[in-house]
Amino acid sequence: MISGERFTVVYRLTGDEATARQKAHDICLEQTVEFPEEFIPQGMIRDHVVGRLEMLTLVEKSYRAEISYAVETASGELTQLINVIFGNISIKPGIVVEDIRLPQAILQHFRGPRFGREGLRAWLKVPKRPLLFTALKPMGLSARELADMAYKCALGGIDIIKDDHGLTNQCFAPYEERLQRCVEAVERANAVTGHRAIYVPNVTAPYRQIVERARLAKAAGAGGLMIAPAIAGLDTMRELADDDSLALPIFSHPAFQGSYVTSPENGIGHGALFGQITRLAGADAVIYPNFGGRFSFSQDECRQITLGTKIAMGSIQPIFPSPGGGMSLEAIPEMLRVYGHDVIFLIGGGLFRHGPDLVENCRYFRRVVEQMAGE
Amino acid sequence: MISGERFTVVYRLTGDEATARQKAHDICLEQTVEFPEEFIPQGMIRDHVVGRLEMLTLVEKSYRAEISYAVETASGELTQLINVIFGNISIKPGIVVEDIRLPQAILQHFRGPRFGREGLRAWLKVPKRPLLFTALKPMGLSARELADMAYKCALGGIDIIKDDHGLTNQCFAPYEERLQRCVEAVERANAVTGHRAIYVPNVTAPYRQIVERARLAKAAGAGGLMIAPAIAGLDTMRELADDDSLALPIFSHPAFQGSYVTSPENGIGHGALFGQITRLAGADAVIYPNFGGRFSFSQDECRQITLGTKIAMGSIQPIFPSPGGGMSLEAIPEMLRVYGHDVIFLIGGGLFRHGPDLVENCRYFRRVVEQMAGE
Repeated sequence: MISGERFTVVYRLTGDEATARQKAHDICLEQTVEFPEEFIPQGMIRDHVVGRLEMLTLVEKSYRAEISYAVETASGELTQLINVIFGNISIKPGIVVEDIRLPQAILQHFRGPRFGREGLRAWLKVPKRPLLFTALKPMGLSARELADMAYKCALGGIDIIKDDHGLTNQCFAPYEERLQRCVEAVERANAVTGHRAIYVPNVTAPYRQIVERARLAKAAGAGGLMIAPAIAGLDTMRELADDDSLALPIFSHPAFQGSYVTSPENGIGHGALFGQITRLAGADAVIYPNFGGRFSFSQDECRQITLGTKIAMGSIQPIFPSPGGGMSLEAIPEMLRVYGHDVIFLIGGGLFRHGPDLVENCRYFRRVVEQMAGE
Repeated sequence: MISGERFTVVYRLTGDEATARQKAHDICLEQTVEFPEEFIPQGMIRDHVVGRLEMLTLVEKSYRAEISYAVETASGELTQLINVIFGNISIKPGIVVEDIRLPQAILQHFRGPRFGREGLRAWLKVPKRPLLFTALKPMGLSARELADMAYKCALGGIDIIKDDHGLTNQCFAPYEERLQRCVEAVERANAVTGHRAIYVPNVTAPYRQIVERARLAKAAGAGGLMIAPAIAGLDTMRELADDDSLALPIFSHPAFQGSYVTSPENGIGHGALFGQITRLAGADAVIYPNFGGRFSFSQDECRQITLGTKIAMGSIQPIFPSPGGGMSLEAIPEMLRVYGHDVIFLIGGGLFRHGPDLVENCRYFRRVVEQMAGE
């Protein structure tokens, strides 16, 4: 019944060696049998089901515990895999998930991103340069006004034009009307430019409406879907990614996800959360706050995310890092230095700051990126 | 288009007054328009859509900011309401959601718990004393072994017998077989005792399988459903609660939810998360780690949760606090003192520690609670 195959999670633990060892031991029980140690049945349960501390190493002032779990504990389900990795111990201080190492016996249950970096480039017909991304806002504009903005952004050469993540189905710009108008506006601009810009609606919504809104998006001709997995559920994002009748690129938004990364002593490492877990959950690009913007991620944390988006994960493809959040046109040169060409630059409000003409600002954004990227 | 009605979120902010005021101002923009202030259109958007700082007060060393939002921003959706309350700012340090105040214009969109405290007491036919709750484990036991345990617990007088939250559909005890056997075992015990014990399967599962497993549970005669909303999605729990074809009590499990409460400087207060938000999302009882167990919640935090489970929320009923997590039979007297009678005592592994006979241990648990509670 037990294959003997195991997957490994690397946890960063606070405290001295004895404390870290005790904590690691607790994790082995808490994440599997959750049972008093003395009563754990001998045999398969004690030998295989209980987590196993494989290694404990001091790495700069804190301990790294490599704990392995039987692949059978995860039941081939993303939901239960997340539970084994960090379910109950999310409630305990001093534990951070640093790295997740999954064998094919786990990975085979997950398709991961349908497009990945290569597929998204092909979808947008942009073979080499960084991709350009913006958000329609502010909330309160009508669908017509947002569509006008989408038209200008597409005309100016932006590749991906998404809803701001706060746009759902408010009375100001109801989902269906916004969808129809924005798709039409972007198509109209594409007819002028010859580019293949896409409109990406936000489908973060109540349980029953997520798939419904995604189907409407597909039918209307939207070029991708955005969802906030911490609000809608990580596995809900996977469902959208895996749905062959949709077959659209998926953009993961970090709203409500921040508490997993804001404490240095509890949570999930930036690379594991925005990289590995997001890939496993099927996103083709992960949105997160760039260093130097109005959020607090460091350059090192952003590098960890980039690493997580491309680190080897068997058949699971690399995805695009998509830093954004208060970034400006002026930040592009340094971002190119840090991220290279395989990146999506997300500029929202910053596009309005450069000058009075949105189309010209977009053109400038694109020109800067093309020149800097040597194209 | 704007009714003028607003809901209020109270945030605890770190820093001195100027910092807190700046942070509050940022929240007003970040959670709504997410747009450079100077470009926010005059009129409805600037006057109503942008969040409004209603009050800033110093309360013991930190500031409380009361920020109001137009009810229209939440679009009547739990997902978007959560996003307005704590979406993007979850990524910013120094912000904790302390309290949520919702007018009927928001509450009317939510049914909340179908049973609530009164309904769950009626469902179980236990009018006054604290309810008794246990979990089937460890993972690795067969469905037959788990059902045998369920039988003993029901025979011993436990009211609610749930799956351990790590039991999903593993090969050791596949969901359907476990469900059938455990329901049958508990019914068999009820026939002996004359009580109305219930079996509550864990339906935390991949997106498509959650409702399917819930329907199987209903058809088999399960007496409730358990789900971990941080893994499956808060709105997924609401969907289960609202489904008239299920009409079963919902038990909320805290797995993967901990990072929202482990940092004192970022996240959601215990009462707001485990109380108010959990009620809004339809749970009838909220499981969380008790003080004094193997987790780190303080007695004060547990009191905040209890308050959150019953604080006035219009038509949304009070729900049961269900403290557990490493608690022992010996802890019951103090728990009765802290929680009173409207509580569900969740004892898992601790039930095995009292003596060699599980049925006798359960009987002892029940007797202690009945005596202490004066029944």
